[in-house]
Amino acid sequence: MTQQITQPIIILVNPQMGENIGATARAMLNCGLTNLRLVNPRDGWPSERADAMSAGALEVMPPVQVFASLEDAIADCHTIYATTARARDLVKPVMTARSAGVAMHQDITEGQKIAILFGAERSGLTNDEVMMAHKLITIPLNPDFSSLNLGQSVLLVSYEWSQGTFNAPEIAVPLGKSNPAPAELFNGFFDRLDNELQTGGFYRVAEMKDIISRNIRSLFSRAHPTDQEINTLHGIITTLLNSHDRKDG
Amino acid sequence: MTQQITQPIIILVNPQMGENIGATARAMLNCGLTNLRLVNPRDGWPSERADAMSAGALEVMPPVQVFASLEDAIADCHTIYATTARARDLVKPVMTARSAGVAMHQDITEGQKIAILFGAERSGLTNDEVMMAHKLITIPLNPDFSSLNLGQSVLLVSYEWSQGTFNAPEIAVPLGKSNPAPAELFNGFFDRLDNELQTGGFYRVAEMKDIISRNIRSLFSRAHPTDQEINTLHGIITTLLNSHDRKDG
Repeated sequence: MTQQITQPIIILVNPQMGENIGATARAMLNCGLTNLRLVNPRDGWPSERADAMSAGALEVMPPVQVFASLEDAIADCHTIYATTARARDLVKPVMTARSAGVAMHQDITEGQKIAILFGAERSGLTNDEVMMAHKLITIPLNPDFSSLNLGQSVLLVSYEWSQGTFNAPEIAVPLGKSNPAPAELFNGFFDRLDNELQTGGFYRVAEMKDIISRNIRSLFSRAHPTDQEINTLHGIITTLLNSHDRKDG
Repeated sequence: MTQQITQPIIILVNPQMGENIGATARAMLNCGLTNLRLVNPRDGWPSERADAMSAGALEVMPPVQVFASLEDAIADCHTIYATTARARDLVKPVMTARSAGVAMHQDITEGQKIAILFGAERSGLTNDEVMMAHKLITIPLNPDFSSLNLGQSVLLVSYEWSQGTFNAPEIAVPLGKSNPAPAELFNGFFDRLDNELQTGGFYRVAEMKDIISRNIRSLFSRAHPTDQEINTLHGIITTLLNSHDRKDG
């Protein structure tokens, strides 16, 4: 019985430097991926350099699996993705990293075990290796300067997968212990400010008063102050009024 | 007159190692960004180590600008984004890297000059530095292992910007010099195959013939063969038929 794996398996094919395997592990774990397979690592396995570069990732991930051939490494996988920087003379679907990230979640929902292949540092995947894949992934980058190192490629592809996993609000304003001021509190502040400005002769041209007043209100409204900040704003008005008294007094 | 800049300016605040400045430059240029500013680089500027790590990026980018203070570095910028890994006790909008990438395109469409701040390697931005920004960017990652090095942070934030620049189809199937086969060609192939299977006794149960034939047709249709591949498939049928003749003959 094959164990159900709920995330893509990263497969490095003929990786050369242990440092890059370590950087791969770190990038994977940043993105919540923990299944790493190696095909014929040039400098052997395990690797002290990989451990050092992984920033602790290899210690908490399941043991890396090493295979003698790509065929063996993908034997239990249903859908194989291959990352490739350059166009291949192959009639295979080419996806952006972003759309592949979405597609892989769909594959896994269907119960598939999936793998993502990354080639050797300098040469990438050979055509024979790419042939093993069902779908190709390319990362759209500056066409005049698109070369990424192995760890960065793994980071971007893993990141695109992870954005379907680590949901965060697109934009949020953390308020700590305070709360957004209710309208009553905001209006109390603004009415006070408006009255003091009126009393102090700020609105020189009567016809313009409404427009200028509305613009000032809009400025403070845009900041959407918390209840604590409304208190602070009251304090500012009081301080300025008192300073004025002192100067004139 | 300020020159119109159509991309975000990356500002490294108190960066320490030249290697990380070089990795930043490489990641930036991968994503089409070329404006880099440094505030108080610890090991000085220029840096041979930065040049080596930039993989040629620093040679083709405009000269890096060095400033003595963050205030000076952002003086001409309208909207400031700050990257931060941890929550701050500040009431400021916090955006994902993805939504910030979209927002920055909008800012620039409005004619704004924008900057993205990255802090020192170990400590990140101080609270006083974060205060200078209008919006904060966090990258949603594995909460148990979210630490990125400087170059990787710059890569992911720049990448999110770049995905609004380097448009690529979500999925495409490159066909090289061949073309998708027109239906007439596909049907000619399939009808031939179907007839040969019928003649050869493949459809043993007459009632099942239509279903099985439809499933086989569906398999080949799913592959959506090119005109050249239809020729190849005809060749396969011919070869198999002739081999059968030889064996039996």
